[in-house]
Amino acid sequence: MRLALGLEYDGAAFAGWQTQADGNTVQDALEHALQSFAGARLPTICAGRTDAGVHATYQVVHLDTEVDRPLHSWVRGVNSFLPRSVAVRWACAVPAAFHARYGALARRYDYWLLNDAVRRPLVEQRAGWVFRPLDESRMRSAAAHLVGSHDFSAFRAAECQAASPVRTVQRLDVQRRGALLRVRIEANAFLHHMVRNIVGALVEVGVSRQEPAWVAQLLASRDRRRGAPTFTAAGLYLSGVQYDASFGLPEPVDTSPQAG
Amino acid sequence: MRLALGLEYDGAAFAGWQTQADGNTVQDALEHALQSFAGARLPTICAGRTDAGVHATYQVVHLDTEVDRPLHSWVRGVNSFLPRSVAVRWACAVPAAFHARYGALARRYDYWLLNDAVRRPLVEQRAGWVFRPLDESRMRSAAAHLVGSHDFSAFRAAECQAASPVRTVQRLDVQRRGALLRVRIEANAFLHHMVRNIVGALVEVGVSRQEPAWVAQLLASRDRRRGAPTFTAAGLYLSGVQYDASFGLPEPVDTSPQAG
Repeated sequence: MRLALGLEYDGAAFAGWQTQADGNTVQDALEHALQSFAGARLPTICAGRTDAGVHATYQVVHLDTEVDRPLHSWVRGVNSFLPRSVAVRWACAVPAAFHARYGALARRYDYWLLNDAVRRPLVEQRAGWVFRPLDESRMRSAAAHLVGSHDFSAFRAAECQAASPVRTVQRLDVQRRGALLRVRIEANAFLHHMVRNIVGALVEVGVSRQEPAWVAQLLASRDRRRGAPTFTAAGLYLSGVQYDASFGLPEPVDTSPQAG
Repeated sequence: MRLALGLEYDGAAFAGWQTQADGNTVQDALEHALQSFAGARLPTICAGRTDAGVHATYQVVHLDTEVDRPLHSWVRGVNSFLPRSVAVRWACAVPAAFHARYGALARRYDYWLLNDAVRRPLVEQRAGWVFRPLDESRMRSAAAHLVGSHDFSAFRAAECQAASPVRTVQRLDVQRRGALLRVRIEANAFLHHMVRNIVGALVEVGVSRQEPAWVAQLLASRDRRRGAPTFTAAGLYLSGVQYDASFGLPEPVDTSPQAG
């Protein structure tokens, strides 16, 4: 039987998704809890291998198991073995054709920015911080240049292992809620650090150090060295993964870093 | 010169407001940073001595000092000596007649509840959790019985040191935002654990273990032993303190525990 699990986690507590020798990763915590619950080792494959510090409200994994328990037991039982910083939000039985990574049609990330002259302890580790005023209409103009299928080499980390630098951005919008800005980006897939590098570039435009058209030039240059610094992982949330509707997975929830 | 400072803090990081021998309190952190910034010991008096785990988005303190620096330096300078879990949000020069505690006309607390069958790691330490469905219209009916001047002995911790159990609740409302509920309560002052005990009682009504009228009976009984358990500190935020408008202090900001 193949199961899909939806996960939420506080990235500040972990050294990223992928299993490591010293163990402090989301995958290690999950697979340890699965083993405690099911009495068997159950390897998992995830939709998006988030970096250290990156949060998720909608990470999806799949696993294969002979253990026959009600779906709600997979949620409550596994959660009882997980630390408070990670939880299984839902469990669905899926056909063997479902694959959390290769079956993902699109991923959605939300990047939250605190735009305030003074830092706010209650969004610490939950948002990036820009103390200069951000003009979100300038950021939207810049963002429009990135929608579509492009070579995103200018927004790609040096250590990125993807075979191709071409990705298709279906949506990239900027919304303000008081002192918080949300940059929401949907794409078929992402290069390493692509969202954090895009946010860095949009912030350059938002604080008027660059014009919106500079983002188009940066994209065309395919040169990461001309870009802005990579923004902190603390503001980044994996907030949705889209699969074929026939699998019937739950809809993603809204995200917000606001905490007081 | 008398200064008023507005503070935000993540209560999960502290053993409450008031200074203690082992030092891990908000007051200790603040007075240590003030001494580092000003080169002199500057005792502070606060509007509300929050318990361990209780957050604040609008705590107010006053202090007296001979140190003459621009107000924005008091914000940035003191923040540079504070841990990331607490920040000075604003500084105002106030007349000697201003008193953070005795001059407070009203205090406002927000209590946030996560109402979801499954726990959410991104509101961990930021909200109370009720996994049974809450009916907020029942909670509002119950809350209406508590508005006004009453003897709140039934909602008072045994260790409460207040001279009188009578308090005046000006506002007590319940709002839902998706899976989150906010209980907002404004009163001239609060007894020890009064908000957390009121929330405990409203939850009993919200999950239909009690009828709304039970809260009126509980209030009239003046008997804490008949009440519900004290709700966790994690959902509680000191979110506003009202002073005479002539002091010109900043308005409180909105609160939310949502973090993904």
